[in-house]
Amino acid sequence: MEHGSAILLSLFIVFVAAQIGAEIAQRIKMPGVVGEIAAGCVVGPSLLGWVQPAEALDVLAEIGVVLLLFSVGLETRLDEMKRVGRSAVQVGVLGVIVPFVLGALWAHGSGYEWAQSMFVAAAFVATSAGITARVLQELGALQREESRVILGAAVIDDILAMLLLGVVTALQSGESLHIGHLALVLGEAIGFVIVVALVGTRVARQSSRWLEAPIDALSPLTIVLALCLGLAFLSTQFGLAAIIGAFLAGMIASETTQRHCLEEQTKPLLALMTPFFFVVTGTKVELAQLADWTTLGVLALITAIAIISKLIGGFLGALSLGKKGALIVGIGMVPRGEVGVVVASLGLAAGVFSPRIYALIVAMSLLTAMITPPFLAILLREKKP
Amino acid sequence: MEHGSAILLSLFIVFVAAQIGAEIAQRIKMPGVVGEIAAGCVVGPSLLGWVQPAEALDVLAEIGVVLLLFSVGLETRLDEMKRVGRSAVQVGVLGVIVPFVLGALWAHGSGYEWAQSMFVAAAFVATSAGITARVLQELGALQREESRVILGAAVIDDILAMLLLGVVTALQSGESLHIGHLALVLGEAIGFVIVVALVGTRVARQSSRWLEAPIDALSPLTIVLALCLGLAFLSTQFGLAAIIGAFLAGMIASETTQRHCLEEQTKPLLALMTPFFFVVTGTKVELAQLADWTTLGVLALITAIAIISKLIGGFLGALSLGKKGALIVGIGMVPRGEVGVVVASLGLAAGVFSPRIYALIVAMSLLTAMITPPFLAILLREKKP
Repeated sequence: MEHGSAILLSLFIVFVAAQIGAEIAQRIKMPGVVGEIAAGCVVGPSLLGWVQPAEALDVLAEIGVVLLLFSVGLETRLDEMKRVGRSAVQVGVLGVIVPFVLGALWAHGSGYEWAQSMFVAAAFVATSAGITARVLQELGALQREESRVILGAAVIDDILAMLLLGVVTALQSGESLHIGHLALVLGEAIGFVIVVALVGTRVARQSSRWLEAPIDALSPLTIVLALCLGLAFLSTQFGLAAIIGAFLAGMIASETTQRHCLEEQTKPLLALMTPFFFVVTGTKVELAQLADWTTLGVLALITAIAIISKLIGGFLGALSLGKKGALIVGIGMVPRGEVGVVVASLGLAAGVFSPRIYALIVAMSLLTAMITPPFLAILLREKKP
Repeated sequence: MEHGSAILLSLFIVFVAAQIGAEIAQRIKMPGVVGEIAAGCVVGPSLLGWVQPAEALDVLAEIGVVLLLFSVGLETRLDEMKRVGRSAVQVGVLGVIVPFVLGALWAHGSGYEWAQSMFVAAAFVATSAGITARVLQELGALQREESRVILGAAVIDDILAMLLLGVVTALQSGESLHIGHLALVLGEAIGFVIVVALVGTRVARQSSRWLEAPIDALSPLTIVLALCLGLAFLSTQFGLAAIIGAFLAGMIASETTQRHCLEEQTKPLLALMTPFFFVVTGTKVELAQLADWTTLGVLALITAIAIISKLIGGFLGALSLGKKGALIVGIGMVPRGEVGVVVASLGLAAGVFSPRIYALIVAMSLLTAMITPPFLAILLREKKP
């Protein structure tokens, strides 16, 4: 009873903090998501300590971001994604290579051995699609070409980051690398995405008779939510983030005749669940670990490296969209968010990262997540389609 | 990563099991909720073992039942509740006394001392409003007089059960009883319900300007969800179940001009979250503990006592509705569901219950939850308003 009561209080605080944070952010012309992450910093252990880490909160956060990417997928058509395929691949590949190289150079320059440096560098790589997707959705910009390139690149980015993490983990622990095995892992992940996207959308387009005249108005929603949870789980089995599967599920659902109805029904789900993702992300910052000038200097440096490297990679990859479009794509790829936190946790668990470098990488990931949305918002508002 | 993957699989299994269970139940003319609880038995540790107990699942279940009672409150007007107040109080009081007396007599007859017998009897008392509310909602019967009596009685039942549990815990552990303290606890709980209901609905009726012309179509939903979580937490602080606060929040929201919009927006939330409550409830059954004829005989006996005693209490309390109405109310009060499970857990923790009596009480609670819906459905379908 006592415990149930404590978790209800946490849910209430997280939910209300998100609304207040988003409201304040929007009043000062910032995207609401920045306010939600900041609210997480405030109510989390670093400052007020009203919300303590709890497995249940992490699960709610995961459901929140899964539903968010599902809803983004729902606004994304496969045909439109195919049209930007080439740019998305370039952005994805360059957006992995440039941060990885610059990150490894910085880490080696700071005294790490090469094997460890590459592990640190891996934390610079993976873009968190959740933050950018939310900003694009908030600004109603999901139908723009830049948005499609970003979403496609985020999928490719996740595949490559997963592969890279496998490689650096193996190198760091001294295991030998099997190129054949790596190729298999890569092939499986790419195959999963392609097969699900192609077969799923085809099935959704054809046999939608049971969707067209549902007995219960909520049956289509239930079916696609089951698909969403199922594909989210499956994509983790292929080493990918759960949100990739959720995004694919949304794309499949967007091919059905019920897509507008599903979009409407998904909105209340997002209103309830996504605040948990952003606030919980904010609670992960450990301000105490960063409270001296040297550390803050290092933080500023690695955050700058993280931002500039991703920006360069994304910009170069998307040049075919024009300079402004390429800049939007580059900035859209910057947030590392919870993906950087996951890599940092792995590094801490493997003994590669000290608590200080762990706190630094987590703070860098969250800073990139908080810095990006305002710039993205300014650029997107400027350049109306 | 691994853990995140495991919980996603659990979410998928629970969600899909609920849909399949509900579908099968509805095909054989049973309420869907019976199928969902049965599905929980099947995928839970007792049979397939696909879903293991997890704190995160319990939290999702709690959110599910909180949202369910919120939505039931949304279909309930305070004025209509007041009109059935007298019957509701009678049903609530008699529905506590009769099961408590019969339960204590049975326990004492089976060899327990009086102090322990009263603890066992406390597990016979508390009605689980979730099960009945769901059946009433499924059948579109929430606007009937019987439904209002049941919901009002469930609130009173919860207050009395909370008080009773306090008394038997004190008696059992040999603490002295302070009548003044008990009166205070009772007064606080009743005061909480009355103040929230009266003040909340009045505020909702008057200052609804910001609700009438919301900037964002989802703002009213966000506000009432915050209210729902807040009152759910607050009611646990007064010793009441979280669902009481959620029900009150729904009643307050039903007084606003946005009620129909809120009803529509709540439906997708219920579709996502309530399956967790019913399936997780089903996973709590421990079939292995019940696998001999003597135990099954005892189970049949205590389930019969639990059903008949509640039926008598509810029937006598609601006689003013006529015999058939009183029968519907009596049956509606029968399910113990998760409330019985909570009391049994407390008894196990306090060392009063053996694992066998624990398993028996849990099984009895769930049996009453599974037996009630079909009968309720038959009676409600028969007697159209």
